Amino acid sequence: MPTQSTMKAALQAYIDGFNTDDANAIMALFADNAVIEDPVGSPLKSRAEFEAFIRQGVAFGARLSLAAPIRGSHGNAAAMAFIVTFVQDGRRIISNSVDVMTFDESGKITRMNGYWGPDDVTGA
Amino acid sequence: MPTQSTMKAALQAYIDGFNTDDANAIMALFADNAVIEDPVGSPLKSRAEFEAFIRQGVAFGARLSLAAPIRGSHGNAAAMAFIVTFVQDGRRIISNSVDVMTFDESGKITRMNGYWGPDDVTGA
Repeated sequence: MPTQSTMKAALQAYIDGFNTDDANAIMALFADNAVIEDPVGSPLKSRAEFEAFIRQGVAFGARLSLAAPIRGSHGNAAAMAFIVTFVQDGRRIISNSVDVMTFDESGKITRMNGYWGPDDVTGA
Repeated sequence: MPTQSTMKAALQAYIDGFNTDDANAIMALFADNAVIEDPVGSPLKSRAEFEAFIRQGVAFGARLSLAAPIRGSHGNAAAMAFIVTFVQDGRRIISNSVDVMTFDESGKITRMNGYWGPDDVTGA
């Protein structure tokens, strides 16, 4: 099981990857067979589908900031509340999210669940 | 599927239940067959085991405050980052958590996952 600090560093690196426009750094955090449900309630994304989603976010200049310190667990998962901002069609969009990430033994993310609903997005 | 506002109200009621020392109000939010993993990585708690856990928290005078607005989803789940404080053996304990709650059709919580690790508790 990855250490708390390994998992928390990965979540921070996910934030930092967006803030440095580095989609490759973001994708490097995920296992090849990673499954993404973002937002929760939408169809699962494969790693390839997720990569397109991430690259679009980076292209939109998405900026992420933690809303509270990253939380670990007593298992192989960690979670964080954060805020995403980006500009689309001249409008500034702000989205509140909680992401939960589950890890494999090597410290790669195998599952990401993104909790945000229609009401958590403003400016759209 | 419960509405976003129904799910968010339940998470707020979970917070309010602790802050008014009302274990019955907290337990009324959960379905009879609810399963709780709090913290994630610990053995699953049945509703009865969870009730003992909640009543102990209330007895310790646990106070909960949101660290960021409650998030919904596009499905039957909602999540929140919050801070728990209580006093045990004269020490003030502060714990950072993210809880994810999943709901049934009637708006009762069927699953709660609590994300907090050993490093997220101070004062213990």
